[in-house]
Amino acid sequence: MKLLALDTSGMVASVAVWEDDLIRGEYSMNDKKMHSQTILPMVEQLRDQIGLEMESVDAIAIAKGPGSFTGLRIGSATVKGLAYALNKPIVSVPTLHALAHQLCGSEGLICPILDARRNQTYTGIYRYTDGERGAFPEQVILRDQCAVSIGEIAQDLNARGELVTFLGDGVPVFAVQLRDLMKVPYRLAPAHLNRQRAAAVAALAAEYCRKNMQAHDGRLVPEEGVIESAFDHAPEYLRLSQAERERKEHADQENAPA
Amino acid sequence: MKLLALDTSGMVASVAVWEDDLIRGEYSMNDKKMHSQTILPMVEQLRDQIGLEMESVDAIAIAKGPGSFTGLRIGSATVKGLAYALNKPIVSVPTLHALAHQLCGSEGLICPILDARRNQTYTGIYRYTDGERGAFPEQVILRDQCAVSIGEIAQDLNARGELVTFLGDGVPVFAVQLRDLMKVPYRLAPAHLNRQRAAAVAALAAEYCRKNMQAHDGRLVPEEGVIESAFDHAPEYLRLSQAERERKEHADQENAPA
Repeated sequence: MKLLALDTSGMVASVAVWEDDLIRGEYSMNDKKMHSQTILPMVEQLRDQIGLEMESVDAIAIAKGPGSFTGLRIGSATVKGLAYALNKPIVSVPTLHALAHQLCGSEGLICPILDARRNQTYTGIYRYTDGERGAFPEQVILRDQCAVSIGEIAQDLNARGELVTFLGDGVPVFAVQLRDLMKVPYRLAPAHLNRQRAAAVAALAAEYCRKNMQAHDGRLVPEEGVIESAFDHAPEYLRLSQAERERKEHADQENAPA
Repeated sequence: MKLLALDTSGMVASVAVWEDDLIRGEYSMNDKKMHSQTILPMVEQLRDQIGLEMESVDAIAIAKGPGSFTGLRIGSATVKGLAYALNKPIVSVPTLHALAHQLCGSEGLICPILDARRNQTYTGIYRYTDGERGAFPEQVILRDQCAVSIGEIAQDLNARGELVTFLGDGVPVFAVQLRDLMKVPYRLAPAHLNRQRAAAVAALAAEYCRKNMQAHDGRLVPEEGVIESAFDHAPEYLRLSQAERERKEHADQENAPA
């Protein structure tokens, strides 16, 4: 199986090609450049370097959100275009699941944190079980990705009473608050594991494909929110965008009883 | 602090730029192309994309070996040239330490395995401790990198009686033997964590620099085998190359008593 994967959910723009449990190539940038200008040239660059035939990929994987609204729209629009033109399915991978997957096999709990602005985080709680002998560790979702305050997620983690490893762009933002809030031992993921990577999206997408195919006699079939067509795929924002929020507040005010 | 890192010790050619606990860019390829043709253009590509001023890096990190003899020579020669021209120190990172660092914070023991041919592996045994509250997990070297048979390393791991995670290009090569040899529970690292990455070399090099600077009032000073000049740096092969081995065998035969 061969997958092309993209992650544009945060500051990092990242592209990877996964083939039979190997990353054949990966290209990531954490720069202030616009994803709309960088992501397709990065795909092109990687394609040329590893001699990838675009038609040979079995599916296109994307970090579907949450994350930066603009970043998610660019990523989703790009994979929709690619998937439509190449007639391939899209594998939608929740951003926080993919981020946690960087710490696949980690001891204790894993808590990815993205800065969602307005005093909120996009976060979730994960752990890994051993899985079968000689196989990959398996991701277990203890708390699905959500938009909550740093206080709420810290309280949840404290109640679980286990070692926690944090990662994600929210870690430096909430570092001081975490120091006060955390009552259980905790640690941080180092640089090479602490931000979005398309290779992690691809590896998790490959697991989703494997499970889907096992259930369907080796064929990859549509699965709501996971294996989607170019028409069905949509980003998962988890919250309203600023524009939508303001329009809603405006409408609520107008409709409010005098 | 800012580091440029390279890893050409195996099939993967990888380049990364580390800055203040962030990977600013990374480019990796696992292709059959020659490292001698790909590695400098990859540095150039990454430099252009993130607008890196080569003079602004504090040091150049390299996976110093063991690994492919030709790969190591290309990597070392490249960083020696860069370090000499830019007048920067080289940070030498043992290949197996950097490979194990992909699983920073993992539960149990970590055993990277490279296929060293002639029925041998380049391997080592590692674990992570929690380190300080709110800091990175710390790498502990239980068995330093070495060239041994798969049977010898399996025996060592079995004697330690703990869960093991394997990674590296030796895993598919020795998969069947591992299934027979391993008496303790074991698992494999998934695609995004199972091969060389310059970002892992950079993250570990940053730790070496931090420790060096802490011991020397914030200055980075030469340290044998770790912080080296362009003149002092040399790859660590761990074994004789095929040419050297054959010459030695030849000489031994000639010198043998009749």
